[in-house]
Amino acid sequence: MSKEKLKEYISQIKGLDDEAAQRAQERLDSLAKPPGSLGKLEDIAKHLSGISGQIYYNSEKRCVIVMSSDNGVVEEGVSSTPQSVTLAQTINFVRGLTGVAVIAKQFDTDLIVVDVGINADVDYPGIINKKIRKSTWNLAKQHAMTYDEALQAVLIGIETAIDAVNNGYTLLGAGEMGIGNTTTSAAVLCALTGFPAEDVVGKGGGLLEDAYRHKIDVVKNAVRDHEPDPADPIDVLAKVGGFDLAAMAGVFLGGAIMRVPVVIDGFISMVAALAAARISPIAKEFMIASHASFEQGFIHAAEALGVEPCLMMSMRLGEGSGCPIMFAVIDAACGMMRDMATFAEADINDDYLDELRKGDHFTINKD
Amino acid sequence: MSKEKLKEYISQIKGLDDEAAQRAQERLDSLAKPPGSLGKLEDIAKHLSGISGQIYYNSEKRCVIVMSSDNGVVEEGVSSTPQSVTLAQTINFVRGLTGVAVIAKQFDTDLIVVDVGINADVDYPGIINKKIRKSTWNLAKQHAMTYDEALQAVLIGIETAIDAVNNGYTLLGAGEMGIGNTTTSAAVLCALTGFPAEDVVGKGGGLLEDAYRHKIDVVKNAVRDHEPDPADPIDVLAKVGGFDLAAMAGVFLGGAIMRVPVVIDGFISMVAALAAARISPIAKEFMIASHASFEQGFIHAAEALGVEPCLMMSMRLGEGSGCPIMFAVIDAACGMMRDMATFAEADINDDYLDELRKGDHFTINKD
Repeated sequence: MSKEKLKEYISQIKGLDDEAAQRAQERLDSLAKPPGSLGKLEDIAKHLSGISGQIYYNSEKRCVIVMSSDNGVVEEGVSSTPQSVTLAQTINFVRGLTGVAVIAKQFDTDLIVVDVGINADVDYPGIINKKIRKSTWNLAKQHAMTYDEALQAVLIGIETAIDAVNNGYTLLGAGEMGIGNTTTSAAVLCALTGFPAEDVVGKGGGLLEDAYRHKIDVVKNAVRDHEPDPADPIDVLAKVGGFDLAAMAGVFLGGAIMRVPVVIDGFISMVAALAAARISPIAKEFMIASHASFEQGFIHAAEALGVEPCLMMSMRLGEGSGCPIMFAVIDAACGMMRDMATFAEADINDDYLDELRKGDHFTINKD
Repeated sequence: MSKEKLKEYISQIKGLDDEAAQRAQERLDSLAKPPGSLGKLEDIAKHLSGISGQIYYNSEKRCVIVMSSDNGVVEEGVSSTPQSVTLAQTINFVRGLTGVAVIAKQFDTDLIVVDVGINADVDYPGIINKKIRKSTWNLAKQHAMTYDEALQAVLIGIETAIDAVNNGYTLLGAGEMGIGNTTTSAAVLCALTGFPAEDVVGKGGGLLEDAYRHKIDVVKNAVRDHEPDPADPIDVLAKVGGFDLAAMAGVFLGGAIMRVPVVIDGFISMVAALAAARISPIAKEFMIASHASFEQGFIHAAEALGVEPCLMMSMRLGEGSGCPIMFAVIDAACGMMRDMATFAEADINDDYLDELRKGDHFTINKD
């Protein structure tokens, strides 16, 4: 049933509007600058046109959707941070105190905070309760969740994104809080791509060497023992993922359904984006990478997805903290497209400039 | 006389405030995040403390100083853009129509537009007249300017930056408009560092292959024939530089004198920063790199200066267009420092969280 519902959602995702992208390219080439000289700002502007079908994009109303959940695998000692921090920081999102909350405020970005599986009964104003259950199971011992729960998490993500767009948001970011989720992300990445655990497991918040070795083993063994099917991303998310990860994958799908760009944050967000693109390859066309996370597996995940971040900030906080900074870059692209002069408007082909071109100098006196 | 004046200015530049930087580091480590996990945002926040002596930095009032000038070397056909565009785009800065003007507006950034040597009599509201003379000479045939003119240009830059800080700006960027200035920048970079011309000459706005080959020869021959002295950056700027480049070098020095950060834009700005650091090595401590320009010589100039840009935008427009985007990143750093909770404020060490750590679950109900 959930499977049918997901299928129905996925069928709504259509590719970019090539004709609009073409018109955007024509405007970009008419702007008073050497063609292509604004680099990624031009790429982003064209991309937004392909997404929206419009030449000009309004990026003013934007949000980061933060999926909070706990992961049973923390029992294995794979995180240097206690599980309770998932709850504490989820509350702090709403209080405006965490990294993403502060950076979001700086860039006029709202937070939509969703509890999909925090390991506590949470009833706190501003935290949306979509809890599937309290924490996944320990993937070192069993599947993290059932197949149906994974579907449910993805659907929660899709519907949260759809709601956001229906509420006027035209730019989304996908963030998370879930102690243990660099472990689940590494496992999902290994399962989806075949990368060896050694290459994609990082030290997360700051693991010591022994715990780091153990984390690699946990990932390696889980992928080996549960045999997640790389052709079925829901199976992968269920067996070695997390509610947060699956719900974030849903956010990327929801953005694609609603034809609104979704900005990818760091490692966990990138793995969720990859899972979404495995569920619906066209959904990738609605994603925008932000920064290159310092977490070890990030670059492999980005390569597997085929996206290139443009912020090199050595950040590895997660939460969605890179998204609002990328929103500022997107603002710059939108502003360029809207406000920059064409060659004609810039008077660069005017008669008096033709004169100047001949080498004559004369006074421009205008007031 | 000008030389004495420059010496006097340079003597005012003092290094970073290590004690303030240390206090900043302590605050950074007390914030509720894994230590160092906000990467370059943390580096920037600490850097701003070293610059200002304050823990919190206010980056709200900022400007890009744009130095406009013509370069005699355009006679050699080293640019695909006619010289008249220097004037046209300088006027368009003030009209708010160019790349940097539009991006600056997006990020609440003012432009300070200075004519240091446009090849026309310019009398236009908003363009500050500091013209040394109409265009430098053609460096393929003679020194671009006299030694005294180079000093004068550097002093103009210093004093423009000092005026800006006296007018309340706490964050500066160094931009330019000057057709032909990728040629002068490449020549200055070769002269200062010994890099071969082939490695640092790029195609600028979009040169065809033959003209590009010729541009390399022009740079190579000028550096060989004029024998600029790498130990005397003023001599280098005079013989193979430009008024724009020299004045921008002055802006970096002026920022350092006033203990205000100056953001470096692309290739030309980076070469100006390098020249400034050769004039006063301590001045480097007040510079912040922004984006990695796509112009070929950029990365060599950045390496020679020893700075690392964090925006990978494939931009090569110049004008200072990368600075306002970096101002947004700096805003994020300032916001993090000011508004993010410490571990204590985040309740992460509170009793109820200690309970959670023991594995008990209970309801947080607060409204």
